Amino acid sequence: MEVLDVIRNRRSIRAFKKRSVEEEKLNRILEAARLAPSARNMQEWKFVVVRDRVLRERLADAANKQHFVAHAPVIIAACGTIVDRVMGCGQLSYPIDVAIAVTHMTLQAVAEGLGTCWICAFDEGKVKSLLGVPEGVRVVALLLVGYPDESPPPRPRRELAEIVSYEKFA
Amino acid sequence: MEVLDVIRNRRSIRAFKKRSVEEEKLNRILEAARLAPSARNMQEWKFVVVRDRVLRERLADAANKQHFVAHAPVIIAACGTIVDRVMGCGQLSYPIDVAIAVTHMTLQAVAEGLGTCWICAFDEGKVKSLLGVPEGVRVVALLLVGYPDESPPPRPRRELAEIVSYEKFA
Repeated sequence: MEVLDVIRNRRSIRAFKKRSVEEEKLNRILEAARLAPSARNMQEWKFVVVRDRVLRERLADAANKQHFVAHAPVIIAACGTIVDRVMGCGQLSYPIDVAIAVTHMTLQAVAEGLGTCWICAFDEGKVKSLLGVPEGVRVVALLLVGYPDESPPPRPRRELAEIVSYEKFA
Repeated sequence: MEVLDVIRNRRSIRAFKKRSVEEEKLNRILEAARLAPSARNMQEWKFVVVRDRVLRERLADAANKQHFVAHAPVIIAACGTIVDRVMGCGQLSYPIDVAIAVTHMTLQAVAEGLGTCWICAFDEGKVKSLLGVPEGVRVVALLLVGYPDESPPPRPRRELAEIVSYEKFA
């Protein structure tokens, strides 16, 4: 499938089949993250793959009790490991770099016939404690991965003319 | 080309051919950004497309005088327009959401036979002034887009075992 079709077909999936994700598919998804670019190629990231059912239920509790979180057969906690580096433009590098890697995973998942959902509404302290994430490391997102059990329509998007301007901000 | 091949083939390109980017290719790249997911579907982004030669030279000056910046026929300034929203996990949403959209563009560019380079080393004040970016809007990255005039080898990446752990951070 062409990239733009993958992008067009991606949805945030919140209902998953009771079917586990094949090891080789999961590995290609992680490989997509591994190959992501990062500031100065720091690769300041770590991905904790959670498949244990009890742990997934606890993560769902930590994610504002969003129950569907536990229904994903795989939850990947995407962490930033160097959290104090500020780039010339004034932005911290790790949220951007981790977001690039997670985005790669979301697209490769679609190519594998899988669905994903970014979860950023969670109590970071609880998630860190559940996963044994050390101080000085930040959990940026939980990515749910599994076979979709829903096919939601595309969400509305602003028109290009509204989000693009030429030569000047307008 | 399959997504994973696109991801494998993507490089940061710093040398560009003197060839302009076709309108329809540029529009598909911007479309890839438009379709990106964002927190609560806020789409808190704006993309300023710069093709004017003089303006590109000034942007290169603002980007720590990295001269190759001006050689890209297209520079897309990716801006965050709602810059104070913090997600439950404690992260600002806009750097992550803009990073997702820019990542979509980097991959669609490869699919179009184009190369890109993320530039995050720049004086944001100077860039904002050059592009007329209002207060309260942040410029997260400059994305260079053009036909590659180099084919750099892949940069080294950590092994999967180094960046992935199971059930616990390790």
